[in-house]
Amino acid sequence: MALFTKEEALRYHSDGRKGKLEVISIKPCNTQKDLSMAYSPGVAEACRAIHADEDLSYKYTGRGNLVAVVSNGTAVLGLGNIGPAAGKPVMEGKGVLFKIFADVDVYDLNIDASDPEKVIEFCKMIEPSFGGINLEDIKAPECFEIERRLIEEMDIPVFHDDQHGTAIISTAGILNALEITGKKIEEIKIVVSGAGAAAIACSKLYVTMGARPENIYMFDSRGLLYEGRAGVTGFKADFAQKENAGSLADCMVGADMFLGLSVKDAINQEMVKTMSKGAIIFACANPDPEISYPDVKEVRPDILMGTGRSDYPNQVNNVLCFPFIFRGALDCRATTINDEMKLAAAQALAALAKEPVAQDICDAFGVDKLEFGMDYIIPKPTDPRVLTRLAPAVVKAAMETGVARIQIDLDQYKADLEERMAASKARGKMVVDSFNYDF
Amino acid sequence: MALFTKEEALRYHSDGRKGKLEVISIKPCNTQKDLSMAYSPGVAEACRAIHADEDLSYKYTGRGNLVAVVSNGTAVLGLGNIGPAAGKPVMEGKGVLFKIFADVDVYDLNIDASDPEKVIEFCKMIEPSFGGINLEDIKAPECFEIERRLIEEMDIPVFHDDQHGTAIISTAGILNALEITGKKIEEIKIVVSGAGAAAIACSKLYVTMGARPENIYMFDSRGLLYEGRAGVTGFKADFAQKENAGSLADCMVGADMFLGLSVKDAINQEMVKTMSKGAIIFACANPDPEISYPDVKEVRPDILMGTGRSDYPNQVNNVLCFPFIFRGALDCRATTINDEMKLAAAQALAALAKEPVAQDICDAFGVDKLEFGMDYIIPKPTDPRVLTRLAPAVVKAAMETGVARIQIDLDQYKADLEERMAASKARGKMVVDSFNYDF
Repeated sequence: MALFTKEEALRYHSDGRKGKLEVISIKPCNTQKDLSMAYSPGVAEACRAIHADEDLSYKYTGRGNLVAVVSNGTAVLGLGNIGPAAGKPVMEGKGVLFKIFADVDVYDLNIDASDPEKVIEFCKMIEPSFGGINLEDIKAPECFEIERRLIEEMDIPVFHDDQHGTAIISTAGILNALEITGKKIEEIKIVVSGAGAAAIACSKLYVTMGARPENIYMFDSRGLLYEGRAGVTGFKADFAQKENAGSLADCMVGADMFLGLSVKDAINQEMVKTMSKGAIIFACANPDPEISYPDVKEVRPDILMGTGRSDYPNQVNNVLCFPFIFRGALDCRATTINDEMKLAAAQALAALAKEPVAQDICDAFGVDKLEFGMDYIIPKPTDPRVLTRLAPAVVKAAMETGVARIQIDLDQYKADLEERMAASKARGKMVVDSFNYDF
Repeated sequence: MALFTKEEALRYHSDGRKGKLEVISIKPCNTQKDLSMAYSPGVAEACRAIHADEDLSYKYTGRGNLVAVVSNGTAVLGLGNIGPAAGKPVMEGKGVLFKIFADVDVYDLNIDASDPEKVIEFCKMIEPSFGGINLEDIKAPECFEIERRLIEEMDIPVFHDDQHGTAIISTAGILNALEITGKKIEEIKIVVSGAGAAAIACSKLYVTMGARPENIYMFDSRGLLYEGRAGVTGFKADFAQKENAGSLADCMVGADMFLGLSVKDAINQEMVKTMSKGAIIFACANPDPEISYPDVKEVRPDILMGTGRSDYPNQVNNVLCFPFIFRGALDCRATTINDEMKLAAAQALAALAKEPVAQDICDAFGVDKLEFGMDYIIPKPTDPRVLTRLAPAVVKAAMETGVARIQIDLDQYKADLEERMAASKARGKMVVDSFNYDF
C-alpha cells in the first residue's frame, strides 16, 4: 500500500530542478547601490561590526537561522553505511522538513569522514557559520562520543536527532499513555528491542523522567544486555541487567511497555499476549514495525500502540520534534539543547494531544475525529499548533536553566512565530508553484 | 561620493530577514505523498540509486548546481585577518552574486581553520556534497598551497577567486588594450605593484598568454622582487628579477603596463608621465585605486586605464568571471578549471567588448553609449550576454581539453542558459518582492 511508485520517488528528486533545495538571494539586487551594499564595498560595514563584536554575526548574517545538518552517511535510514554522497537525499529532505515546519534554513553537509575525530573537527570548524548543528545518520557507538564532545566543546546547540527525536516523542507518548492506563513511570517494566543510538537515548530520557534502570530490559541482536555478557561494553553497559533474565519472550511477560527500535517481526502475538494489562507498544522499525498494529489489536485490544507509520494511529515521527526544538533554541540563542528543553518539548507535545483537533487535520488522515485516547496520544506533525507550543516551551526551559542568551517575551513570541511561519509558507508556495511540477 | 550610508549598508544586512540568503524547499510538500517522497521512505530510492552509482548524485540531489564558498577569514577584502564570523557577510554576498548572475546555489562556509592543512582537510571532506569549491579570502602564501593540493587531490573544480578572477578579467583587458595600442604581449614591460595572491595569479596568466617573466617587475611592500633580496622566497621567487632594477619610479620608466593590486596612492602622476606611449594602467586597489582615473588622464590622456570602481570606465570586477566560469564548469561537470578554461573566459570577455551594447546597460552606467575603445575594453557585469558567452566558451575549452565529464551541444546550451536564467531571475524577484524592503 505504498503511496508512490519507485519511479515517482526518483522523478520527485530529478525533475524540474535537481534535488530538493535552492539557495535564494533575499535582499534587493536591482541597482548599483543594492549590489554595493550586498558585496564590496558596503558589506565591509557588516564585517567590521562583527569583527568588533562577534555576537553581531546573529544580526548581520543569516547565522541565527541556519542549521548545519551534518552526516557522514554511516547509518542512513535503514540502509546502513552507504556513504556521504548516497546520504545526501536524506539530508536535503531534512532541510525540507526544517523549512516547511519551522522556517529554519539548512545547509546539508555530507562529509567523507568515517573517523569520529574527523567529524568532531569538522563541526568545530564550521561553528562560526551556523546557529546550530543537527547530527544525522551517524552510526553508534561513534555518535555518542561525537555528540558528547561537541556539546562540551562548542557554544552552539548540537543535537543528534536519531537519538533524541524518538526519545522526546516516545516520552510524550508514555506520559499520555500512563495517564490513560493509570500507571506510574517509576514502576513500569520496559522492554527495549534494539540497542542503537535511539534505543539508548530513549532509555536515558525515560530514566530522567523517573523510570528505574533496573526495570529496563534492553536487547541487541545477541540477546539481553546483562553484566558479563560478551559485547556488553561502553554505552550498552549503562543498561545492562545484573543477571541474565532470559529471552525476549521471557522478559515480555508482565512488561508494561515495549519499545521497538530494531527490525520487522522482532516480536509476535504470543509475546504480546503476555504483557501486562494496559501495556504500551511503540514499534518504530521502518517501514515495517516489530509487529503490526492489526496483529497487536487482534490479540490485545487493550494495548495502546504506536508505530513509525503515518497510516496507523500514534505515529512516532521525528519531524514532530527537530524543527521545533531548533526553532526555540535558535530564537533564544541557547548555547545547548539540555534535558530540560527536551522534556519541555515532550510535555508540550503530550499536553497538545489533549486539545481538540481541527477538522482539516483529521480529514488529511482520513478520520472523522482525533480525540485524546488510546488511538490519539501524539499530535500530528501537520498540526500548526505544534510549532507554537513546542518552540515557546523550549525557549522557556532554556531561559529557566540559564542557557538562553536572549530573554524572550513568550506571548509576543508565539504571535511572532505564527506570522513568520505564514510568511515563510507563502514564500515557499510561490517558489514551488513557479516550477509547475507534475509528479 | 559613496552610493550608500554606513547605516543603510548595515540595515541592508539586518532588516526584514537577517543576512542575504535563504534556503528554500523547491519540491511540492503539500500532501502525505509528497512528504513520503521528500523524506522517508521515498527518499531511500534516491539513496539506493546513488549508492549503486555515485554519479547519480548529480541527478537526484542539488550537488551539480551547488558550490561551497569556503573561507577562513584570513584575508577578507582589504580588512585583513578578521576571522570566519566577520567574513561571513562577504561570503553570503558571494552567494548572492553567484545566484543573481548565474543561478548557482552557494553554501557559504566560514571556517575556524587558520592552519592550511585544516582547510585542505575540510574541503576534501565536503567533496561528496558539492559540485565545486570556490576558495575565498584566504591569505597568501597559504592560499597557493591550499589550491594546488586541492586541485591535485580532488575530482571537483576548486578555484581561488581572489587569484584567478582578477587574472582572467585583466587578461581580457590586456588583449583588447594591446589590440588598440598595437603592441605585442611578448614585448611589453609590465610593472606590478603588490605581490599577493592576485598579483601572482595575474602575472602567471600573462606569462601563459606570452608575456616574458624577465619583463615583469613585481614590487612588494619592501620594493622590487629580485634574486637574493630578503623575503624573496617561495612563490615570490618565481617573479624575481635577476638584479635590482631600482625603485618603483625607476621601473615605471618606459613601462607598457602597470598593474596595481596594492594600496591607494602607490603611484603618482610623475611616474605615470614616464610610461610608454599607449601604456595600460589597471589600478585595482579598492575602494581607492593606486592612482585615480582623473589624475592619470590629466597628465597622460593616451593611457588606457581601468580600476576596481564602477564609477569609472573599464571596471576590473571579479563578478565578471566567477559566476560564469563555475556555471560552465558545473554544467559540463568539469573535474577542474584549467588554464585553457580561464583563457577561454578571458577571450570571450574580450570578444564581447567589441560588440554593440544595449541602451539600458549604458543608461544604468549613466553614459550615452558604450563602444569598443579606450574607455570600454571590458564588458559590464550587468550585460546578460556575459553569461551566454563565457559559460559556453568555458564548456568548449573543458571539452577540448578532456576535463568535461559531459559533452554538451553548445548551441542548445546557450538557449537553455537563457531560459534557465530568466526563470531564476523571475523566481528571485518574487521572493525579494515578498519581503517589501525599504532601504
